Amino acid sequence: MKKVAVILSGCGVFDGTEIHEAVLTLHAIEKNGGTWHCFAPDIEQSQVLDHTSGETLDQTRNVLIESARITRGQVADVASLNVEEFDALLVPGGFGAAKNLTDFAFNGAQCSINAHVASACRAFAEQRKPAGYMCIAPVLMPMVYPQGVKGTIGQDPDTAAAFNALGGEHVNCPVDDIVFDQANQVVTTPAYMLAQSISEAASGIEKLVEKVLSL
Amino acid sequence: MKKVAVILSGCGVFDGTEIHEAVLTLHAIEKNGGTWHCFAPDIEQSQVLDHTSGETLDQTRNVLIESARITRGQVADVASLNVEEFDALLVPGGFGAAKNLTDFAFNGAQCSINAHVASACRAFAEQRKPAGYMCIAPVLMPMVYPQGVKGTIGQDPDTAAAFNALGGEHVNCPVDDIVFDQANQVVTTPAYMLAQSISEAASGIEKLVEKVLSL
Repeated sequence: MKKVAVILSGCGVFDGTEIHEAVLTLHAIEKNGGTWHCFAPDIEQSQVLDHTSGETLDQTRNVLIESARITRGQVADVASLNVEEFDALLVPGGFGAAKNLTDFAFNGAQCSINAHVASACRAFAEQRKPAGYMCIAPVLMPMVYPQGVKGTIGQDPDTAAAFNALGGEHVNCPVDDIVFDQANQVVTTPAYMLAQSISEAASGIEKLVEKVLSL
Repeated sequence: MKKVAVILSGCGVFDGTEIHEAVLTLHAIEKNGGTWHCFAPDIEQSQVLDHTSGETLDQTRNVLIESARITRGQVADVASLNVEEFDALLVPGGFGAAKNLTDFAFNGAQCSINAHVASACRAFAEQRKPAGYMCIAPVLMPMVYPQGVKGTIGQDPDTAAAFNALGGEHVNCPVDDIVFDQANQVVTTPAYMLAQSISEAASGIEKLVEKVLSL
């Protein structure tokens, strides 16, 4: 039975992990015979947003603690993620990937990546263990994999250009498909960069998880 | 295409809606050819809990605003729910159903129900439009339907006794099955009252949604 590490970035599409993507990912791991083990950085969220209005709430929230809402409490500090214990890595999207795991949402191609997230992701890359990044999370990949890593963030020209400026090689992709970089053993899918429904997001995510667990 | 109203109670199993149940429900509505329309009461959560430790956080959060995290912003005040516009009602579980929609978690069979939630649920019952309640949410049903309404909260003797004390007729049920009260056109399933995985929760929820949308 394959053990899959999943990195979350909060709870809610606009300031954390996209919830549908996370649940579809965890469910797909189970359906493919694997077990899921969630991790998140133990840091303050960069923002706390009212998801009805988009306005900032006058609160601080912790990425690890909020991520636990998605996992019914089962989440560990990503600084403790030991790649030796896992067969694969999955990173769902949501603005949390671009606001908490990295600051891509604020700084674009001049962004940085959380040190513990980078260590964990690079360990999977260096050991050539398979990984899957969804939605906006592929912007982490040029900071993790060698120059020229192939991936998709869907079809948005500005985000694709930033992916390329970071050192990746962007490939346009429809919502129900995946891009597989065989040399790096990494799979991407647009999910809610393009999806208009949970079913559309599921079509690509289920394909991605099946591919990653088959490698 | 059937229009389904869904009542949420926050975002996170211990103080709000159980997230897996909510996403499985919305996805199952889509897979059965329906559209989902979410509602929640515009009130403060009764608690805000750290989902890693179970401890209370020194914050207030609004049930409607937090529910919007699950729906990517698409949620309306349950006080505005007009039953004429919908074909069916679904209520996922999580402690939010027993802490925010009702105070069952604190007062058991001496509980009360939020007035707007009660009005909405009773309107579906009175018009004999089909409804489905999951996990702990069936404790609302004796406050909505006539004496003797049949439902399940799984197999927990104390919760079943409280369901009966409220005026319901509890039926034990395994995680992958449903209980259908034909007279009242209402369906229940244990979900995370018994489930040990997302797949187990999905087995009953998908059966419930398919049944409700077939009525």
